Amino acid sequence: MSTIQSHQLQQHVGHKITVQGHAQSVRDLGNLMFITVRDNGGCVQAVVSEKSVLEAARAVSTEAAIIVSGSVTQMAGKPAEIQAETIEVLSASGFALPVEISKEAKMDSLSISAMLDYRPLTLRNPKVRAIFKIQAAICQAFSEFLIGENFVEIHSPKIVSTGTEGGANLFKLDYFGKEAFLAQSPQFYKQMMVGVFERVFEVGPVYRAEQHDTTRHVNEYISLDLEMGFIHSEQDVIALQVRLMKHIFARVKERCASELAMYGAKVPEFDTIPQLRLAEAQALLTRELGWKPASDTVDLDPEAERLLCEHFAATEGTDLLYLTHYPHAVRPFYAMPEGTSSHSFDLLFRGLEVTTGGQRIHQNSELIASMEARGLNPEKFDDYLQCFRYGMPPHGGLAIGLERLVKQLLGLSSVKLAVLFPRDLNRLTP
Amino acid sequence: MSTIQSHQLQQHVGHKITVQGHAQSVRDLGNLMFITVRDNGGCVQAVVSEKSVLEAARAVSTEAAIIVSGSVTQMAGKPAEIQAETIEVLSASGFALPVEISKEAKMDSLSISAMLDYRPLTLRNPKVRAIFKIQAAICQAFSEFLIGENFVEIHSPKIVSTGTEGGANLFKLDYFGKEAFLAQSPQFYKQMMVGVFERVFEVGPVYRAEQHDTTRHVNEYISLDLEMGFIHSEQDVIALQVRLMKHIFARVKERCASELAMYGAKVPEFDTIPQLRLAEAQALLTRELGWKPASDTVDLDPEAERLLCEHFAATEGTDLLYLTHYPHAVRPFYAMPEGTSSHSFDLLFRGLEVTTGGQRIHQNSELIASMEARGLNPEKFDDYLQCFRYGMPPHGGLAIGLERLVKQLLGLSSVKLAVLFPRDLNRLTP
Repeated sequence: MSTIQSHQLQQHVGHKITVQGHAQSVRDLGNLMFITVRDNGGCVQAVVSEKSVLEAARAVSTEAAIIVSGSVTQMAGKPAEIQAETIEVLSASGFALPVEISKEAKMDSLSISAMLDYRPLTLRNPKVRAIFKIQAAICQAFSEFLIGENFVEIHSPKIVSTGTEGGANLFKLDYFGKEAFLAQSPQFYKQMMVGVFERVFEVGPVYRAEQHDTTRHVNEYISLDLEMGFIHSEQDVIALQVRLMKHIFARVKERCASELAMYGAKVPEFDTIPQLRLAEAQALLTRELGWKPASDTVDLDPEAERLLCEHFAATEGTDLLYLTHYPHAVRPFYAMPEGTSSHSFDLLFRGLEVTTGGQRIHQNSELIASMEARGLNPEKFDDYLQCFRYGMPPHGGLAIGLERLVKQLLGLSSVKLAVLFPRDLNRLTP
Repeated sequence: MSTIQSHQLQQHVGHKITVQGHAQSVRDLGNLMFITVRDNGGCVQAVVSEKSVLEAARAVSTEAAIIVSGSVTQMAGKPAEIQAETIEVLSASGFALPVEISKEAKMDSLSISAMLDYRPLTLRNPKVRAIFKIQAAICQAFSEFLIGENFVEIHSPKIVSTGTEGGANLFKLDYFGKEAFLAQSPQFYKQMMVGVFERVFEVGPVYRAEQHDTTRHVNEYISLDLEMGFIHSEQDVIALQVRLMKHIFARVKERCASELAMYGAKVPEFDTIPQLRLAEAQALLTRELGWKPASDTVDLDPEAERLLCEHFAATEGTDLLYLTHYPHAVRPFYAMPEGTSSHSFDLLFRGLEVTTGGQRIHQNSELIASMEARGLNPEKFDDYLQCFRYGMPPHGGLAIGLERLVKQLLGLSSVKLAVLFPRDLNRLTP
């Protein structure tokens, strides 16, 4: 008897098969029992009516790991079912579930803290785990696209001796008696690697010790980074990202249709992504969209990002919007300046920034001058500067926040819901 | 004029093309100059003979980022060359190189500390960077194989509240005033995720605060992890790994032929991988191979691993060897016991352990008993125990040390050479 996945059941009507998974729900009607078995492919219903099997079925508690064998039957217009002939309990669930996680459970009404406190359990809910099937599909699409474009995957250290942006928001570490930090970004390393492979990418964790408790922040997240050499301006990076995003969305649509459907989510479809200069965005916001910037704001606040995206969705039917020409003063020292502006950009997706990118300074002397203008000591960045001393091509890149992309795609209420085991101001477990 | 990669040059003989890269070497013979341009695809020679171009060529320093255009010519039996018509210097190398990195440079004779101190530069050497093309190909092959086997990729947190093995060798972190640690392994998380997706894998950094300074250790490395449910024993995990390793080696051979050739390296080819019980290995070692265990050794030491592999290479022609049936006492508390032995294994590759794996305990009560037998407090592992309270299938998995696999494949003298920017007892930079 072959072991199949639940989504293949239909193809085996009239045959004997085995499925293995967790007992998502158990209903006992006396002479008849129904057990919903959840596996990686979905859920199937096992019908138990034979006396000897009923006895075995009564040992099945919710979430127990079980193996069910039997014939596959199907009534007209209904999903296929298994007429259970044997049921094996591999591991009983000996405890009452602290939260309801069945297919019918209203997971959306669960508080975020309950959702996260019982994470090993709540992740088993089909709608909750769908988030992470989509996340995996995005990572796969990101890598396969870039490998096809001659990018080489790298792994840079997460234990570092200096921050990429001067030292704020770093988690501090005791490294054999020396002070070290967790990397905020693979920025310096991916730039060094442009001198080696011309085009590189990395999928890895980054750390921000920000004391923010918002729906947009977590303190450890996955950054999808890329960096490419021999560009003419940030427009080459944007052009690559437009193709990359098309590929990612097409792949998710193709591979995760049922998971998207659980959220009523649609992937954006587009030919191009509109671009707007930051100054133009600010003018539009204050002139037409009723935005009142906080007095100390140079950059846009989350409310402004939301208003802008709503406007562009309504007027141009676009889910995605590039903001360009950020003042150099609000970007890191390595951003390529253009007067007081810079060759940098953000990508907004349905009201939230999901990417920051741009062209970088590639001349050693300019980079040193830019550090000094910020009051940074170039000697502290000597290892980073090595590659610039010996010739670097014009280059640029970007970083996509994986969890933010998933949040916006599915319309989740918080980015924490797009992290398997999130870390925030108050949460270090599970 | 189309921009091509150097390895495509041969296909463009008789045409005008452009290549971009770094000037790996510059030879000036007066009326004739030769510039070796290195790009991601390899190296090409640009010949400069025209007066106006010679002038531009004289501005090219070693490692400068340049763009060269011209016609492709080829003399019988020689590699194709570019007759340079224009040379653009994008970024000069304004400094003398602190180490020689040309194709002809004897990188093997460089000390490890020079190799690592000048890492942004030494990685540019074709033979050095080849290590990381192979590493990237291994990661790609690992992921693609497992996705094809219904595994889902996960990303687990690296900031954790407890160690997986009781607390030794952990890097300590200040997490908003609370004590936290860097994860030694995604072990607990990948097990929790077996209850969610049945089969999961992760490619990510792990941290060991071990005070070892050997050719086999680094303090931050990439672990290729997988975990799978509904197994019968550790033999199901081994069977999957045998197919996985075949796939990885086949892909590396196919995609990195020239990189392997630089090291004179051959990928192992095999149908099966022999298995030996640890006790049998110890008997063989002391009886036939002249091994003298240190008095306090239960496990094998590196010398024993080397001797065993040499023996099996000579007698059975195998590069790979599984050791099985480790005493439960030398394995972590979550290993599935079998009397005083355990359902666990190591995989040795040409004399070095590159994988540890096994079946895990999946019954809540057994797991608690195993913790208590080690003097561990189950309350400290309550989050981990959650998934076992509510039903877990029999499961097992393994972890492959990416850098060790690369080291053994290429015959590198130290695992540090298989890390882009290694972290060891004394090294936090670059």
